[in-house]
Amino acid sequence: MRNILLFGAGKSASSLIKYLLDKSESENLHLTIADLNIDLAKNKTNNHKNATPIAIDIFNESDRKKAIEKADIVISMLPAHLHIEIAKDCIAFKKHMVTASYISPAMQELDELAKKNNLVFMNEIGLDPGIDHMSAMKVLDEIRAKGGNVILFESFCGGLVAPESDSNLWNYKFTWNPRNVVLAGQGGVAKFIQEGTYKYIPYNKLFRRTEFLEVEGFGRFEAYANRDSLKYRSVYGLDDALTVYRGTMRRVGYSRAWDVLVQLGMTDDSYTMENSENMSYRDFTNSFLPYHPTDTVEIKLRYIQKIEQDDIIWDKLVELDIFNANKKVGLKNATPAQILEKILTEKWTLQPDDKDMIVMYHKFGYELNGEKKQIDATMVCLGDDQTYTSMAKTVGLPVAIATLKILNKEITTYGVQMPITKEIYLPILKELESYGVNFKEIEVPYLGYNPLNIKN
Amino acid sequence: MRNILLFGAGKSASSLIKYLLDKSESENLHLTIADLNIDLAKNKTNNHKNATPIAIDIFNESDRKKAIEKADIVISMLPAHLHIEIAKDCIAFKKHMVTASYISPAMQELDELAKKNNLVFMNEIGLDPGIDHMSAMKVLDEIRAKGGNVILFESFCGGLVAPESDSNLWNYKFTWNPRNVVLAGQGGVAKFIQEGTYKYIPYNKLFRRTEFLEVEGFGRFEAYANRDSLKYRSVYGLDDALTVYRGTMRRVGYSRAWDVLVQLGMTDDSYTMENSENMSYRDFTNSFLPYHPTDTVEIKLRYIQKIEQDDIIWDKLVELDIFNANKKVGLKNATPAQILEKILTEKWTLQPDDKDMIVMYHKFGYELNGEKKQIDATMVCLGDDQTYTSMAKTVGLPVAIATLKILNKEITTYGVQMPITKEIYLPILKELESYGVNFKEIEVPYLGYNPLNIKN
Repeated sequence: MRNILLFGAGKSASSLIKYLLDKSESENLHLTIADLNIDLAKNKTNNHKNATPIAIDIFNESDRKKAIEKADIVISMLPAHLHIEIAKDCIAFKKHMVTASYISPAMQELDELAKKNNLVFMNEIGLDPGIDHMSAMKVLDEIRAKGGNVILFESFCGGLVAPESDSNLWNYKFTWNPRNVVLAGQGGVAKFIQEGTYKYIPYNKLFRRTEFLEVEGFGRFEAYANRDSLKYRSVYGLDDALTVYRGTMRRVGYSRAWDVLVQLGMTDDSYTMENSENMSYRDFTNSFLPYHPTDTVEIKLRYIQKIEQDDIIWDKLVELDIFNANKKVGLKNATPAQILEKILTEKWTLQPDDKDMIVMYHKFGYELNGEKKQIDATMVCLGDDQTYTSMAKTVGLPVAIATLKILNKEITTYGVQMPITKEIYLPILKELESYGVNFKEIEVPYLGYNPLNIKN
Repeated sequence: MRNILLFGAGKSASSLIKYLLDKSESENLHLTIADLNIDLAKNKTNNHKNATPIAIDIFNESDRKKAIEKADIVISMLPAHLHIEIAKDCIAFKKHMVTASYISPAMQELDELAKKNNLVFMNEIGLDPGIDHMSAMKVLDEIRAKGGNVILFESFCGGLVAPESDSNLWNYKFTWNPRNVVLAGQGGVAKFIQEGTYKYIPYNKLFRRTEFLEVEGFGRFEAYANRDSLKYRSVYGLDDALTVYRGTMRRVGYSRAWDVLVQLGMTDDSYTMENSENMSYRDFTNSFLPYHPTDTVEIKLRYIQKIEQDDIIWDKLVELDIFNANKKVGLKNATPAQILEKILTEKWTLQPDDKDMIVMYHKFGYELNGEKKQIDATMVCLGDDQTYTSMAKTVGLPVAIATLKILNKEITTYGVQMPITKEIYLPILKELESYGVNFKEIEVPYLGYNPLNIKN
């Protein structure tokens, strides 16, 4: 039996666990699921004979070391800042390691030691980062292999609600951390490069400078710019590309309405509001509007944001219940962002029968034999239910597949790695297809940003 | 001879020095002017027989102590963070002290020691803080003396250019620290209380929620909210007032145009721009706009900010020269705010013959015998020239007057003080009048925020 030790039995581990247990007989695997919460771990093993749930506080050094020593490979699905102690133990006991998180500087420092000990430390092999790296590098390598020169790379990803569960006016529900959604775009300017020029979008313009994306069979989406568009520019070999842009996908119309909340100041996380606990939702909204003795909160908001009464934005705001005078915030010393998160959670939480959806869209512009060409690659993954969500599948399956391939010595590139080489991404993308994670690649006319290229 | 030691011979010290030297014969004063730059100190003494310029590095403890020991009273016009070492020496050598700065926590801690040693440590006795405290407390105390209950206090101040020197479309020139003007409103939400309700204005709305103020003989001004409206709420005894608001004054139209720069992202000081040194002003502007192969920077900016071609905002932007492709930024690793400051400084610097202007406007709403009433108090001070500016007069004269009154034992309230008691503000305001700092107080109908109070 080969022993796999998994730290973290949370939501994103369900598809990963199922994959490994389904193969445990044929592949001779034993899976130990370690979590602070033993019930969570038990629940995830589902009494499978090849699985053992254990309770571990990862800050308990002796317990942690004991568990790692017994394993052949270690997976950490814990929050990213908790990986490093596990990683150091993996070096000490000579165990391979897999995570779905960004490579931290501390993790990167272990590169030499991992190489010296013939260990694979595979990171960024979930969804984003993960599937985005693999699917992008596949097309980029193919273009380069045939002699093409990449001039444009745009990449978009969104965690959304599946069409069949899309039941509110925002076409959005929380499928991941709500706080990150409320704070999206804060903490730094969005920076990217467009036709050779650095461009900067401030927070207050971010949700008004979207672009549209059409995905066959799923209709139209929009995307706003990420802060980190240039993070992988060098890693992907795009230092000479004229356009490098990454964005977050939503259904069309989300951003225009979200911008109203931004402009009002409801997403601000930098100060706490007076008497937030006893405020009604209506008081909260009114805090951002001038006093008036007779005008209603509604008319003041419409006036200040210039919203026509028949604009769908208005219905979206009403749907959130932000004008309700009877609902209390009930949070002490809360920031506007915390209060907004609470209000949204009441409306945007996935219901028991709801399914989620992951959408990814890459655009590759390139020159070949003096001609400009473009390939668009799209992927849509739907959740099966609330356990095997599309988020759990796209994050957990690549981790699981990589883990098995490392065990089977099909992946043997030692050191601190991310999945950007052919040897890694090709077999993993191939196997993901049988789990419904398919990229559709199509050639389209290269339009760039030049309207003269558009045939009327 | 009574010895006065002044630290700091900068721009704001000129009227202060003139006042003390003009009275040096009749009042038997000797003034020592200490500055790191001896030429600056010499220049300010102007060979007056009762003045001595000295060079002092205030971080040189022995020099500093020696100078303070010889004085009867010490004035610090240095940047606020440099006061505290001087203050500690003043305690040690039992000297009174005067500053125009906000009372820091470290300064406040010296209160008990100052009292124990019968020392007056007078602070916040410049313009803002200073004249605002005194003129507001005078009216507040008068209202309370006749049994009135204050329900509204609004206070506005602006450092502007005098009408005769008002020669650009923004009706604004830098009369104080340009960096503070560029960063105005950043670093925290603007918070105030309006008719009993806390209100919050985010940065991106700050310059669109102005109010108008009419000053007799000087026309109309506008004001945007300060961050610190509630700082003196308790000190002024306004804990029960329904409305407490403080703001910054500009000429009408400034804020609407300034907001365009804010919305574009040009006032952001949180990141440095790529290759800022070699950017043209036009490149700088274009960084905040989407790429387009044929549309000009001008049309893109107009479109994104929805500016009509015949809108005066457009002329204001053109006047700043932000579309100039030939002028280089020339600043390495600069933030947008630093670049904008440079661009504005070229246009908004006071010319040799220009005069500045300080405007202050207070509104006091109160109830007396069941009736609602209002007093408006306004002050306009014009600069004489580039030495005796209105800024130098309004900051320096109250400091100088207080210094002499402390020496003459007319002010004897010991401890760390600010000028909010009658014994202090009455004689100082009286004397300021002879220097052209006059408050005009008029009774006006109380309007509050209720349009039903307005007679058509």
